[in-house]
Amino acid sequence: MPQPDHVSALGVPDAGTLDDDLQEVFKKCVDKLGFVPNVLAAYSLRPNKLRNFMAMYNELMLAPSGLSKLEREMIAVVVSSVNHCYYCLVAHGQAVRNLSGDPELGEMMVMNYRVAKLDARQRAMLDFAWKLTSIPAQVTEEDREHLRAVGLSNEDIFDLADTVAFYNMSNRMAIGTDMIPNREYHGMSRPTPFVPPAPK
Amino acid sequence: MPQPDHVSALGVPDAGTLDDDLQEVFKKCVDKLGFVPNVLAAYSLRPNKLRNFMAMYNELMLAPSGLSKLEREMIAVVVSSVNHCYYCLVAHGQAVRNLSGDPELGEMMVMNYRVAKLDARQRAMLDFAWKLTSIPAQVTEEDREHLRAVGLSNEDIFDLADTVAFYNMSNRMAIGTDMIPNREYHGMSRPTPFVPPAPK
Amino acid sequence: MPQPDHVSALGVPDAGTLDDDLQEVFKKCVDKLGFVPNVLAAYSLRPNKLRNFMAMYNELMLAPSGLSKLEREMIAVVVSSVNHCYYCLVAHGQAVRNLSGDPELGEMMVMNYRVAKLDARQRAMLDFAWKLTSIPAQVTEEDREHLRAVGLSNEDIFDLADTVAFYNMSNRMAIGTDMIPNREYHGMSRPTPFVPPAPK
Amino acid sequence: MPQPDHVSALGVPDAGTLDDDLQEVFKKCVDKLGFVPNVLAAYSLRPNKLRNFMAMYNELMLAPSGLSKLEREMIAVVVSSVNHCYYCLVAHGQAVRNLSGDPELGEMMVMNYRVAKLDARQRAMLDFAWKLTSIPAQVTEEDREHLRAVGLSNEDIFDLADTVAFYNMSNRMAIGTDMIPNREYHGMSRPTPFVPPAPK
Amino acid sequence: MPQPDHVSALGVPDAGTLDDDLQEVFKKCVDKLGFVPNVLAAYSLRPNKLRNFMAMYNELMLAPSGLSKLEREMIAVVVSSVNHCYYCLVAHGQAVRNLSGDPELGEMMVMNYRVAKLDARQRAMLDFAWKLTSIPAQVTEEDREHLRAVGLSNEDIFDLADTVAFYNMSNRMAIGTDMIPNREYHGMSRPTPFVPPAPK
Amino acid sequence: MPQPDHVSALGVPDAGTLDDDLQEVFKKCVDKLGFVPNVLAAYSLRPNKLRNFMAMYNELMLAPSGLSKLEREMIAVVVSSVNHCYYCLVAHGQAVRNLSGDPELGEMMVMNYRVAKLDARQRAMLDFAWKLTSIPAQVTEEDREHLRAVGLSNEDIFDLADTVAFYNMSNRMAIGTDMIPNREYHGMSRPTPFVPPAPK
Repeated sequence: MPQPDHVSALGVPDAGTLDDDLQEVFKKCVDKLGFVPNVLAAYSLRPNKLRNFMAMYNELMLAPSGLSKLEREMIAVVVSSVNHCYYCLVAHGQAVRNLSGDPELGEMMVMNYRVAKLDARQRAMLDFAWKLTSIPAQVTEEDREHLRAVGLSNEDIFDLADTVAFYNMSNRMAIGTDMIPNREYHGMSRPTPFVPPAPK
Repeated sequence: MPQPDHVSALGVPDAGTLDDDLQEVFKKCVDKLGFVPNVLAAYSLRPNKLRNFMAMYNELMLAPSGLSKLEREMIAVVVSSVNHCYYCLVAHGQAVRNLSGDPELGEMMVMNYRVAKLDARQRAMLDFAWKLTSIPAQVTEEDREHLRAVGLSNEDIFDLADTVAFYNMSNRMAIGTDMIPNREYHGMSRPTPFVPPAPK
Repeated sequence: MPQPDHVSALGVPDAGTLDDDLQEVFKKCVDKLGFVPNVLAAYSLRPNKLRNFMAMYNELMLAPSGLSKLEREMIAVVVSSVNHCYYCLVAHGQAVRNLSGDPELGEMMVMNYRVAKLDARQRAMLDFAWKLTSIPAQVTEEDREHLRAVGLSNEDIFDLADTVAFYNMSNRMAIGTDMIPNREYHGMSRPTPFVPPAPK
Repeated sequence: MPQPDHVSALGVPDAGTLDDDLQEVFKKCVDKLGFVPNVLAAYSLRPNKLRNFMAMYNELMLAPSGLSKLEREMIAVVVSSVNHCYYCLVAHGQAVRNLSGDPELGEMMVMNYRVAKLDARQRAMLDFAWKLTSIPAQVTEEDREHLRAVGLSNEDIFDLADTVAFYNMSNRMAIGTDMIPNREYHGMSRPTPFVPPAPK
Repeated sequence: MPQPDHVSALGVPDAGTLDDDLQEVFKKCVDKLGFVPNVLAAYSLRPNKLRNFMAMYNELMLAPSGLSKLEREMIAVVVSSVNHCYYCLVAHGQAVRNLSGDPELGEMMVMNYRVAKLDARQRAMLDFAWKLTSIPAQVTEEDREHLRAVGLSNEDIFDLADTVAFYNMSNRMAIGTDMIPNREYHGMSRPTPFVPPAPK
Repeated sequence: MPQPDHVSALGVPDAGTLDDDLQEVFKKCVDKLGFVPNVLAAYSLRPNKLRNFMAMYNELMLAPSGLSKLEREMIAVVVSSVNHCYYCLVAHGQAVRNLSGDPELGEMMVMNYRVAKLDARQRAMLDFAWKLTSIPAQVTEEDREHLRAVGLSNEDIFDLADTVAFYNMSNRMAIGTDMIPNREYHGMSRPTPFVPPAPK
């Protein structure tokens, strides 16, 4: 049975009807990525919200921070794994595969980050991401103390909490509107194909 | 024992050192509300993130939508009740008391929205908020169909999901950084004081 | 929409038809509190059960104990917060505001006790209340050892467990019968009203 | 390894030091049952609380009600099964075996009541007991409507909620104080012994 | 109301129609136990699956291992207690009563293993069984390290995980097909009957 | 940081020391698949258990059944998604990609099966797999009736329950022993690589 290929269950406007600034963004995406990420198309139903989402996303994921871009993507995927968010697991799983150059690391983040070999700082960040996502009411100063003990500054903890928080938002937008990720992600940053031996 | 009066566990810069645009915003808050909401002070540790947060918040909560401002605040409180977020329950609980003119309605949203008398449309919105917050992986098209059946348009569902999603983000920022709400909220929009009879 | 003002979803007998001893109790409540707490009216559907409830309540909450009356009320509210019991959060949240003289402490107990500044003994008592309410099967001797280490005697542990247990009962009676608390509680023991500045 | 044989982890006073009324009760227990139930001995650490517990228990479990005594015991065991309360499962499991004359019914209540063949009214009562115990915040008027639809009056619903509530209390007292049930229960109301064939 | 006496909700073939090897097994069961365990009859709907189940079971539960046969049965019951599996709790609860010669130990495993007095090694095994059953995604190398610290070899950990895993399988087969255990188990390995005093 | 490449946290014997029948199986795997699946190597620590596992697996996944081989693999992945089992998600996710010829379907099963477009029969099977895995105690005859209503025979329900049950076992063996899947799976059955446009 053919799988869903809609952008969002709520429908999206024709891209040609959008304001110029948004059309410009979409054009840049096509130039740079080869496609417009469906999350942007889905948000274009509410153009001002799209603008705000992009501004927040760009600052969170691309601006300077004590957390590397890869670490921010790893956090994104761990949060999305708890929430079983298909869109974000596909898109950010690809980002982890790409930024790490290690396709298995991406799969571990998607499936169960506890399997991965990580240093104490990264492990503590992902444990914090898991806890703040799953049982936020139980997060206390002890948890922040543990992050400080493995080397995070207050600004780093801010950025960590912000990344966890942002993907708890975007997971719920993606699930709440049934966003389907662009198919291109599935074919990106995969390992060298393995072909079983020919039957003799 | 005196209760916590910090703005955030991560510390905040002196407001006088912030860029002019942010100082201007803080000044407007004092003029209009009588104080700077601590969430803004807490975010000022990362000024660009503060700007993005305010832009997103203003569009979400104040721009035209099929959901009334009161309804958006009710959703905010129901989400925060699931997550036991002290900051958001205090600040948005006050908003519900204020916008509804019904202090009990604010308390019901904080404690258990299922106690409130609501029409089918509002009840469906809050049930959706509860589900998308608590068990997001289990949200499906059936849930959206139920929202449509009680009168929500696709744009309304977008705004509902967005409100739920946003407070799942801000709850986690508030908990992750231990933001303490301004004390003023506690004394706002309360019912006429009731004084027990004098002992005879 | 006007909020529910029934005493209980199961109906209650006319107070004038109750036995003299119960009418006497109700009269004393009016004299002392200014109203008959709805929990008593709700229980009057089964008069003997009302008598037993009052006897147990009075011993638990008012008799001498190693736990102060305020501490017993704090425990009551933490239990009710886990169970999202509207009646008990309203009534006992007011009691915490009143006995502590600190309205914020009451709100912290209602919303998330982990935010409050507490000494090690009180924190241990509330952590025990949370655990015995949420995941009772996992309580073991280690938990009692921790209570002893912060200074609780065996009698104190008995009274702590009893308070936790009692509110797990009364939360379920209030929810099971949909008891609505008297409106007066909302206007009691609130902080000095805060009024935002007049618009210029 | 010999299993625990204490009455409670908190210790109990020598029965001979108790007030006369309590010694009288204990004597009656020995006359009638052959032993003093450990729950009574455990509560004797706080004699007034023992008196209140007995009064409430006797009214709840023995007074006239639309729910039969067996049904009240079945509810007690289903609640205790959710909470994994060893004391109450042993003592009230025996009561179900005894009152029903069906030892398997007692085991089903202990292990998983959904296995038992029950009429719609009893099944609805036990489903309500399960829900009000496990996820009390989610109980609403719909649940009461379902009980009414299978024949429960308002008084019956009161008694049902009360039974569920009471065992949520006593489960937590038993677990919180580590009460161990009297060994006699294990050997009561069992089926005819089955002896495997002798090895040939 | 008579309790269910079917073997499985899916029906079972007439034993006389089974292949000779299976009829032989059933005959041996009758000779040795006095009955054919219903789990075998239930699996006979798919004869090859019955053969595989028996082979795996016999190796797991009866072959040499660093875990005693009693310990393997204790693990089986703790897993089944988490999953509330009626069939396995009845059948393996009896096995614990029988192998330990301590009927109370069997009841503790069924109801809440944390009540039992166990040495550190057995307690660690049962805690591991609980965790790997309830929250498998959270099991990590730390958990294995703890098992090694109380004396388990790698082979012992293999056999422990295997026992936990097997009963997570058979619990779900028993529940998924509604297997009802043979009545004989209820009357086996019980303590000496206790008879209350005759009424005077 | 290089990711784990052990077969199992418990170690495995040198394959050359295994009995001839097992060496033969491993040789066939290499001939057919190009590698020995690590699950087999991990089980070789206990050779008889390996034999039983293979026999059960082959019957379950390869023998004739009313459920197609693809459907059995889809069930395997949905169960493993609930349990966050890295090994099984990698290995059986590949199997779904391969048998369906649809790499996206494999990702949906891994991440959240509710996103996939499925006919009513397959959807009902996966919902049953989710329930019997997550909340087995709540499965009842109603669930089986729903399966029958979408066309499953009793034998089909047996095979469905058996598949769910088996992966609840093997997930726990893989997690309990920290089995790491062979790297080859990651590079198998992927879509045509997508390459973003070259920067201009």
